[in-house]
Amino acid sequence: MHPMHPIATTPSPPYYAVIFTSLKSPGDDGYSQMADRMVELVEHQEGFLGFESAREELGITVSYWKDEASIKRWKAHVEHREAQKTGKSKWYEAYTIRIAKVEREYSLAPRGS
Amino acid sequence: MHPMHPIATTPSPPYYAVIFTSLKSPGDDGYSQMADRMVELVEHQEGFLGFESAREELGITVSYWKDEASIKRWKAHVEHREAQKTGKSKWYEAYTIRIAKVEREYSLAPRGS
Repeated sequence: MHPMHPIATTPSPPYYAVIFTSLKSPGDDGYSQMADRMVELVEHQEGFLGFESAREELGITVSYWKDEASIKRWKAHVEHREAQKTGKSKWYEAYTIRIAKVEREYSLAPRGS
Repeated sequence: MHPMHPIATTPSPPYYAVIFTSLKSPGDDGYSQMADRMVELVEHQEGFLGFESAREELGITVSYWKDEASIKRWKAHVEHREAQKTGKSKWYEAYTIRIAKVEREYSLAPRGS
């Protein structure tokens, strides 16, 4: 995922968030290429609203979705399924995925905006 | 927040997540000290279940809570309120806070565990 990706602009709640928290295995081994490809793909998925990502030791990626059906379609996408499989066997030491319904949000807008 | 903090161990859903995504202002200016103090405080809050944090350009902290009442109590905590105020005026360029109800989760456990 791109480290400079800004704060996602999302519509008024309710909508869904997928919180993906992971510990990577050492080395890249095709991971970066897959991550770039997933970003490319996900941005064209129906119901995709945006994502935010950061990694130190722990990686956190939160993607935002219109509804649960959109999340299920993305999970079943054939290239994404392949990435999930290799993620389990190779790229990740451990991860947790949480599907959550966003009920409220509030923001501090950039000064001058 | 501590960069080596592991993946949070949370109970079976439903529970709540507060997704705090931020862009920091340049410099520290008391930020690290406040962040350490907030971690110390939050861990003793009733209904607090754990948190996960990572920062590159974008910072993402997700805290997990038993229910909405626990989130509201933490938001109203006097020292936390002071930190929120200084955060708005000094530490953050921009942020978004999303309150979400976690409906499902699944994990890849560390190999050998």
